Amino acid sequence: MAEKSKVLIIGGTGYIGKFVVEASAKSGHPTFALVRESTLSDPVKSKIVENFKNLGVTILHGDLYDHESLVKAIKQVDVVISAVSHMQLADQDKIIAAIKEAGNIDFVPYEFGMDVDKANTVEPVKSLVDAKAQIRRATEAEGIPYTYVSSDCLDGFFLANLVQPEATAPPRDKIIIPGDGNVKAVFNEEHDIGTYTIKAVDDPRTLNKTLYIKPPKNTLSFNELVAMWEKMIGKTLEKIYIPEEQILKDINTSPFPNNVALALNHLTFVKGDLTNFVIEPAFGVEASELYPNVKYTTAEEYLVQFV
Amino acid sequence: MAEKSKVLIIGGTGYIGKFVVEASAKSGHPTFALVRESTLSDPVKSKIVENFKNLGVTILHGDLYDHESLVKAIKQVDVVISAVSHMQLADQDKIIAAIKEAGNIDFVPYEFGMDVDKANTVEPVKSLVDAKAQIRRATEAEGIPYTYVSSDCLDGFFLANLVQPEATAPPRDKIIIPGDGNVKAVFNEEHDIGTYTIKAVDDPRTLNKTLYIKPPKNTLSFNELVAMWEKMIGKTLEKIYIPEEQILKDINTSPFPNNVALALNHLTFVKGDLTNFVIEPAFGVEASELYPNVKYTTAEEYLVQFV
Repeated sequence: MAEKSKVLIIGGTGYIGKFVVEASAKSGHPTFALVRESTLSDPVKSKIVENFKNLGVTILHGDLYDHESLVKAIKQVDVVISAVSHMQLADQDKIIAAIKEAGNIDFVPYEFGMDVDKANTVEPVKSLVDAKAQIRRATEAEGIPYTYVSSDCLDGFFLANLVQPEATAPPRDKIIIPGDGNVKAVFNEEHDIGTYTIKAVDDPRTLNKTLYIKPPKNTLSFNELVAMWEKMIGKTLEKIYIPEEQILKDINTSPFPNNVALALNHLTFVKGDLTNFVIEPAFGVEASELYPNVKYTTAEEYLVQFV
Repeated sequence: MAEKSKVLIIGGTGYIGKFVVEASAKSGHPTFALVRESTLSDPVKSKIVENFKNLGVTILHGDLYDHESLVKAIKQVDVVISAVSHMQLADQDKIIAAIKEAGNIDFVPYEFGMDVDKANTVEPVKSLVDAKAQIRRATEAEGIPYTYVSSDCLDGFFLANLVQPEATAPPRDKIIIPGDGNVKAVFNEEHDIGTYTIKAVDDPRTLNKTLYIKPPKNTLSFNELVAMWEKMIGKTLEKIYIPEEQILKDINTSPFPNNVALALNHLTFVKGDLTNFVIEPAFGVEASELYPNVKYTTAEEYLVQFV
């Protein structure tokens, strides 16, 4: 049996990075996390790092902005997965430069959202999407082998409160629905995103492709989600549909970071950017088809915890 | 009487930019707004642009990422005020490059928050703060005359719901308070921020200084704000204090952009970054002292609209 690739995660202590590091270590890949010295003085991050060590993860001290440390870390591995902060998307050009210097390394740049080449976004999300797309183009221009992981909506952000900006749990009386509620979106649980991302490592079918995580049971319209929730709690909610014109107005009159959340809802539930294209074999593969043995968490299983 | 400086606002159709453009036009400065062609096809932004035209603002077509257009626009004015999106903070280096080429222009880079040189932040806000600080350093290194506008908390973001992530209005039953509630913060109304920013144009006292907008009546602790609100509604709220350890944990377990809002609350209401320093004449001036004739909106006046 071939040895498993060595995997480095940059941004491993972040929201999605944690799940990728955990999946990598548990699947038997020699796993490395690049961690800043300063991270260890953060009481929460230091506990995450401790957990990594218990999983057998090798902690490498270094920084995205310290080229030497980056090259040194990358030289030890076969695959680099970026899980940097949304504030550092453009700075992934530093990872590309370090990979160029380090040699023949596969790169999984930070994506973990929609396919940015299929997006119809408005600001402020347009700038985020453009930053991700620029990193795609730079990766391709340098001839670095890549996989783009398109994981769509995070359950923890979208399902945990059914996309209600005013709630910490799904609502029980009335629900605000962007658009007409009929557009299909995709909702994925965070551990599953980590699992599929790591499955793609060493899989030639994902080489220079986008790995779309769009399991059929998690591809649902807002109205379907609400109907599912209503059935669980045995109650019909009052539904307030927000027309696109109002959403665009709200994006413009809301300060940062609220405008980001509103613009994400706009592209997801009004524009339908997550589902308004066909995955062609030339550019993409679907994760639940590729890895049918992964028992992913369905939207229904996720929601039921809040009943 | 000296002629008033010509002012160009970049990002004028954004959340804070609108108020700066309006204040500039109303105060008699020849006012210019750089607007992308694509902005005019956005139904909301196009209305904002129409309003600018009615105020006598000259609309210049161009783009931050189109150097020629930027230089051409900047050559027509004396002062450039940046109100770009939070996603474009680092890209203000393109404005600096254009100012260098265009000649002797004053620059007000995007700040409109805390003084980034006084910040004790955690990620993801640390990256935002670092990006602003880098633009400060680049501006200074190029010898470009500058004013940094430190406007602290926006009323529309912090007071409109008394910093309750689950509310669209100040709460009437219970209130969540980050930290012990005794740290002083500063709350400013958006029109006032526009007014003070434009007052600083042509004022030699603000040259190469930070203009701090910290009016005494708007400098309040969370507990003082709550007491003010309780008095207005004639009711005592249940208070839930969140210790710093829990806040740091929440920042780490919340996806973007929620983690940004939590980290902003952390620096504001736990670290006290807005008020834990003295404004020394060497580096700063306070706006309400400098312009005592501006009748600013007090936090109390702002809050009373929600009673």
